[in-house]
Amino acid sequence: MEPSRFKDLNLPFRILLGPGPSMVSPRVLRALAHPPVGYLDPEILAVMADLKELLRYTFKTENEFTIPISGTGTAGMETAIANFVEPGDRVLTAVNGFFGKRLADMASRYGAQVERLERPWGEIFTPEDFDAALKGGGYRLVTLVHGETSTGTVQTRVAEIAEVVHRHGALLVLDTVASLGGVPVDVDGWDVDICYSGSQKCLSAPPGLAPFTANARAMEVFGQRQSRVTNWYLDIQGLSQYWLEPHKYHHTGPINMFYALREALRLGAEEGIEARWKRHRSVAEALWAGLENLGLPPRVPEEYRMASLTTPQLPDGIDEAAIRRRLLDDYNIEIAGGFGPLAGQIWRIGLMGFSARRENVTLLLAALGELL
Amino acid sequence: MEPSRFKDLNLPFRILLGPGPSMVSPRVLRALAHPPVGYLDPEILAVMADLKELLRYTFKTENEFTIPISGTGTAGMETAIANFVEPGDRVLTAVNGFFGKRLADMASRYGAQVERLERPWGEIFTPEDFDAALKGGGYRLVTLVHGETSTGTVQTRVAEIAEVVHRHGALLVLDTVASLGGVPVDVDGWDVDICYSGSQKCLSAPPGLAPFTANARAMEVFGQRQSRVTNWYLDIQGLSQYWLEPHKYHHTGPINMFYALREALRLGAEEGIEARWKRHRSVAEALWAGLENLGLPPRVPEEYRMASLTTPQLPDGIDEAAIRRRLLDDYNIEIAGGFGPLAGQIWRIGLMGFSARRENVTLLLAALGELL
Repeated sequence: MEPSRFKDLNLPFRILLGPGPSMVSPRVLRALAHPPVGYLDPEILAVMADLKELLRYTFKTENEFTIPISGTGTAGMETAIANFVEPGDRVLTAVNGFFGKRLADMASRYGAQVERLERPWGEIFTPEDFDAALKGGGYRLVTLVHGETSTGTVQTRVAEIAEVVHRHGALLVLDTVASLGGVPVDVDGWDVDICYSGSQKCLSAPPGLAPFTANARAMEVFGQRQSRVTNWYLDIQGLSQYWLEPHKYHHTGPINMFYALREALRLGAEEGIEARWKRHRSVAEALWAGLENLGLPPRVPEEYRMASLTTPQLPDGIDEAAIRRRLLDDYNIEIAGGFGPLAGQIWRIGLMGFSARRENVTLLLAALGELL
Repeated sequence: MEPSRFKDLNLPFRILLGPGPSMVSPRVLRALAHPPVGYLDPEILAVMADLKELLRYTFKTENEFTIPISGTGTAGMETAIANFVEPGDRVLTAVNGFFGKRLADMASRYGAQVERLERPWGEIFTPEDFDAALKGGGYRLVTLVHGETSTGTVQTRVAEIAEVVHRHGALLVLDTVASLGGVPVDVDGWDVDICYSGSQKCLSAPPGLAPFTANARAMEVFGQRQSRVTNWYLDIQGLSQYWLEPHKYHHTGPINMFYALREALRLGAEEGIEARWKRHRSVAEALWAGLENLGLPPRVPEEYRMASLTTPQLPDGIDEAAIRRRLLDDYNIEIAGGFGPLAGQIWRIGLMGFSARRENVTLLLAALGELL
């Protein structure tokens, strides 16, 4: 081992306009770098109390069980599945993109009988779709992706879908990884039972925490489980003992990430959640207009187009990967390509959290103008 | 929501001498706070390559599958169980403290038939214990805790135990959460199949990553699984696709924690792993001598006493919680109490990583002298 071959960290400063992570405010980075205290220090318990309250504000919920999960967004997804599915349960998974598929895969690993409600990538669902699919009944859980990062859609009419799901006796899980903090989300107003997100998208903290909330209806179903939760790390009974009274050791939380997420959420509270949604919408509209001018119209109809992630339709024959590479190498701008059935057909341009700034839109459009 | 009630982060500067997290070097905190790049940026792939190589150096292994898991130490434990246990498998769990119990609980959640090999808290095992317990055969996995944070023991003769385990056709999982980087660990030399740790103890990065390694024998067993891994987030097949070729998206890694752990491991490589073990031993010996003088002799015999975590035997009638509270409030020093059968009988004093400094020993002994 020759330690001198490992140099000082010397990374480029990237303008992150992909599907996440987004850029992180200097205030959040400063909080991240504070020397840690212990995981049961009275001072960290105060930080955790703030985190729970700020997350409730962001999710628009009064749910007691509202905490950040100690992993990235996918760990939030897995917390929803691992705790609220038992072997043999029927689960209806709405699949209109990559993350719907992931939910179906996860639920089947936990022993669920998974039925898929499918729409082509890039479309969304209606409440009637769910009503038809849930007939025959016996479903325990329905999963729905609010903002599909793979396609750029945002699901509308969630409150009506929740009503249908509840009428059929099931719980609704809503994935807001790409939308929370950038696009209107109203957990209590929509009566969503279980909702999760990621720290690194519209909340603009670094990746490593997954905001999570579950309402009383969900917790009651959890309390009636017949089997133990297979996943020890994500078992919400154990997590409750740490995050709620008696604040008992479960696992060592990522303390510095708690600092960072608290600061990111505090920035959000200072801005105001509605103002934040408006900012995301306003910069997205500037991007959409500019993309139209470049001959790269957003692929998703405006009615269900996500403000935080735009997916322009690419012209035939374009070497899209080469352009992305030049954006990264020459301009330090990251955007992403499409994948699955949309590979080569779209880009994925995120304007999330601290990245959702007018100057980033102007720069990106100018750079694309130079490259195209 | 009145955002002004959330003040600037204003935390005390703690001297962390508990069972973890340990103190973090300013160099590591600076790396942590670098603005993130994307999770597939060519530059992050270089950071990840360094991480794998530095972890191999630290574990003393050539194992290809040597990565940090995106969670805290317990997520490393769960990665070992979730991937190498299938429902119905027989698992032998050596239990001589809190973390052995946790391993047994986890393995049973994943459907294993768990047998416990038990010793009282504070004792360790012999190879003969395993030979006797494994007779009758049919075990797939044996779990063993190297450094028990709940008791302060370090397991000796691991190489001989591994030999016994292999002779009986099983794999050996070794928990080095409290020992890696502070106490000799030699994964290849001992022929340990699966080993994990935490970032926040003797490696002195913040909590949030779990170093993990598995050898070719373990990977072959993994490849013969009949069932899918229930745990999606920790499935090493998916993790391999991100960490090894083709570096495909699995989940968004905690990028800033990658920066921090790389810097922490680089500090370890600069010091040299053997020198680091010696430093831990030398400051521990100073602590042990001082505790004897105070009438608080270490409870664990020196032969298997862990250098990174010391557990002094407390005199009858001492109000140990009050003393710990005064250490925290008046001196900003964190140490921990005992729990389980050792509650009230011991303290747990960690000298781990950046906390393992002569000045911390001197300060703690002087403070205890004032308080006792």
